[in-house]
Amino acid sequence: MNPALSDLARRTGPPPISWLMATALARPGLVSLAAGFTDSETLPAGDMRQLLDGLLRPPGSSRAALQYGTTAGDPELRRLTAERLLASDGSKAAASCSPERVLISNGSQQMLYMLSEALCNPGDIVLVEDPTYFVYLGIVESHGLRARGVRLEKDGLDLKHLEQVLEQLKRAGELPRVKLLYLVSYFQNPTGATTSFEKKCAALDLLKRYERAAGHPLYLVEDAAYRELRFQGDDVNSALAAPGGSRRVALLGTYSKPFATGARVGFGVLPEPLHTAVVRIKGNHDFGTSNLLQQVLARALHSGRYARHVEFLRKRYSRKAGVMLAGMRRHFPEAAQWEMPQGGLYFWVRLPRSVKSGLRSRLFRQALEKNVLYVPGQLCYAKDPKRPKPNHEMRLSFGAASEGDIRKGLERLGAALAKGR
Amino acid sequence: MNPALSDLARRTGPPPISWLMATALARPGLVSLAAGFTDSETLPAGDMRQLLDGLLRPPGSSRAALQYGTTAGDPELRRLTAERLLASDGSKAAASCSPERVLISNGSQQMLYMLSEALCNPGDIVLVEDPTYFVYLGIVESHGLRARGVRLEKDGLDLKHLEQVLEQLKRAGELPRVKLLYLVSYFQNPTGATTSFEKKCAALDLLKRYERAAGHPLYLVEDAAYRELRFQGDDVNSALAAPGGSRRVALLGTYSKPFATGARVGFGVLPEPLHTAVVRIKGNHDFGTSNLLQQVLARALHSGRYARHVEFLRKRYSRKAGVMLAGMRRHFPEAAQWEMPQGGLYFWVRLPRSVKSGLRSRLFRQALEKNVLYVPGQLCYAKDPKRPKPNHEMRLSFGAASEGDIRKGLERLGAALAKGR
Repeated sequence: MNPALSDLARRTGPPPISWLMATALARPGLVSLAAGFTDSETLPAGDMRQLLDGLLRPPGSSRAALQYGTTAGDPELRRLTAERLLASDGSKAAASCSPERVLISNGSQQMLYMLSEALCNPGDIVLVEDPTYFVYLGIVESHGLRARGVRLEKDGLDLKHLEQVLEQLKRAGELPRVKLLYLVSYFQNPTGATTSFEKKCAALDLLKRYERAAGHPLYLVEDAAYRELRFQGDDVNSALAAPGGSRRVALLGTYSKPFATGARVGFGVLPEPLHTAVVRIKGNHDFGTSNLLQQVLARALHSGRYARHVEFLRKRYSRKAGVMLAGMRRHFPEAAQWEMPQGGLYFWVRLPRSVKSGLRSRLFRQALEKNVLYVPGQLCYAKDPKRPKPNHEMRLSFGAASEGDIRKGLERLGAALAKGR
Repeated sequence: MNPALSDLARRTGPPPISWLMATALARPGLVSLAAGFTDSETLPAGDMRQLLDGLLRPPGSSRAALQYGTTAGDPELRRLTAERLLASDGSKAAASCSPERVLISNGSQQMLYMLSEALCNPGDIVLVEDPTYFVYLGIVESHGLRARGVRLEKDGLDLKHLEQVLEQLKRAGELPRVKLLYLVSYFQNPTGATTSFEKKCAALDLLKRYERAAGHPLYLVEDAAYRELRFQGDDVNSALAAPGGSRRVALLGTYSKPFATGARVGFGVLPEPLHTAVVRIKGNHDFGTSNLLQQVLARALHSGRYARHVEFLRKRYSRKAGVMLAGMRRHFPEAAQWEMPQGGLYFWVRLPRSVKSGLRSRLFRQALEKNVLYVPGQLCYAKDPKRPKPNHEMRLSFGAASEGDIRKGLERLGAALAKGR
């Protein structure tokens, strides 16, 4: 290791998924059920072309779009973002959600990064779902943070376990190091589980109860990246609508996943003092997300094209989730278990504990040999001294693969499962 | 201060310039010679519209542009970037500059941020030009770094002073905390000074000589953001072409300033292990700059539109620099001093030391009253225990203002100078 590098650089490992991606690219016949991409065929090229043309043709709007904007983001996009959230969350969220609280970022990923910077010192503790979004675990590792996993139930966060974890941390005198609970609340990456509104309210209450012992606010960071991709059941309110949400909830969302991932625009809705802190940090990162991308997304929202595209995506993913479900039923052994997600891009498959699924497992090797790729469940678990990482699960995505490839992939995976055990 | 915030958040102040920008926006009659923007009238709306249309019309290229890319950046843009640099720097740079070393970022600002993360721990020392780019000083402050200023001469860095500073740091036992020398080498922001190639080579040599005492590599971070905006004289080689440059030079550049600031795309050319470290950090920030923006810039470069636009900008800025020069000659007192820059966007004006120019000075107040804004020189100086911040200079930009406004602004500023002393 080069001795000039910072502690942060030393702690920052290669993303586990990069190896999977490189593998997928290097083997053209490979079916990847690993990638969390959206489906290339669904990308709204026509919409984007027309919106950009409309934006860049009149001199007034074209100059504004090609010039610097403000660090917090395009005022119109901030307004539309608040409006859209309020339309979903209703008047209960009015105190939590206003254009002034919105901050536009380079995908929701950058918001997650900046929030971590704004709240956490090395050695601090974050509470995460067990399992959770693995790129967040990369941030945790890089910043020298410690993670504690909170178990999941079918309707999201296991509140009893959350209380246990908080209580243990309190007894260990570690509560002052706890800063936030990170919740991927809709069709969670990786499990597909959705946390109910009641549970969000209860989690906020619980955090509130431990604030005195912590000596500072405990934030609920709600990552709603997949919220728009619901294809079954009714929308669930975000924690912005929960009692007390206006002071303790930082909500993240994105316009790239439900529209065009190549146009990386996400957002946060942040209470003070987080909003001010993160705007300042963003000023140092890049003094504002590309104005061109922001303005084209504002037009997509305003024109209704965005909403229409989301409707189209929902139908498509619903169908593909069905194809995946059918394939698993047909090709997977009895003992494999899963829940049907109500949206998003993922199935989470639990195998018997004796069947290892990690990168070095026989199953993973067999799958690669048969030209199919999945995300080993193990990668989605934080390092937590309280338990070993489970190693018998996998994340399967119906996002990027075509219906034909999903079928083919599951057949191959079924064969690997038959052989790999 | 909210006790949940991190040390980084506590250290991150509001950017000094944000107050200036807000002032400018709030007073419509105000002439801002403060903004480092490019000229809105020069923004290549027609080019962008046609390039985007060409990119988004064929299904193959449109899908690729709207999908995720790789963290390091679009391969074609990386290739074109390396090619363009090699065309300027010649074969001497061949070992320093290849597509594999290029990393695309959200403007060069993000690259500067990530390089700071990759190299510096809180308490570490960076060497900067005195004065330097003030947004970098924001990063320095935010990350808890210390800065040491190195004086400037007409042809850039004062090498004797650089040696003195290194020697002092060595004697104080502080050399192990020094990580890099940050150099804005072309038409520097704020002074307009350009560092000669000979000086870059000599600076690299000097750094090399102190590496043993430092115990690690000392990097030269060359910020070439304004390189393309030359309107007089011949291009100067970057430090990539210097002996030893291939192992110690990190070069930053941008495609936004010379083309469209609303399309924020910059780049770094980094030696190992910096490249690997920064790609990993970028993976956590946002796993890659917007693919759409990258691909449209690749097409701008490939088609020659970018080069033509840069030619046009050079002529335009040359003219505007001339207008500013004439205005200063006409309206400014004898005692005011400046150098004609060979490119970029700025003049740096030195007043007699008795004339204060800071945010709280009589001169600044007078200028505001007369509806003209400049950047007080003081804002561009690092906190350095070795000297008080000079407070008798100003940065004037001919970037954003029209020729008429430049004339008007200088007349007003001349009047303020007559009154403000």
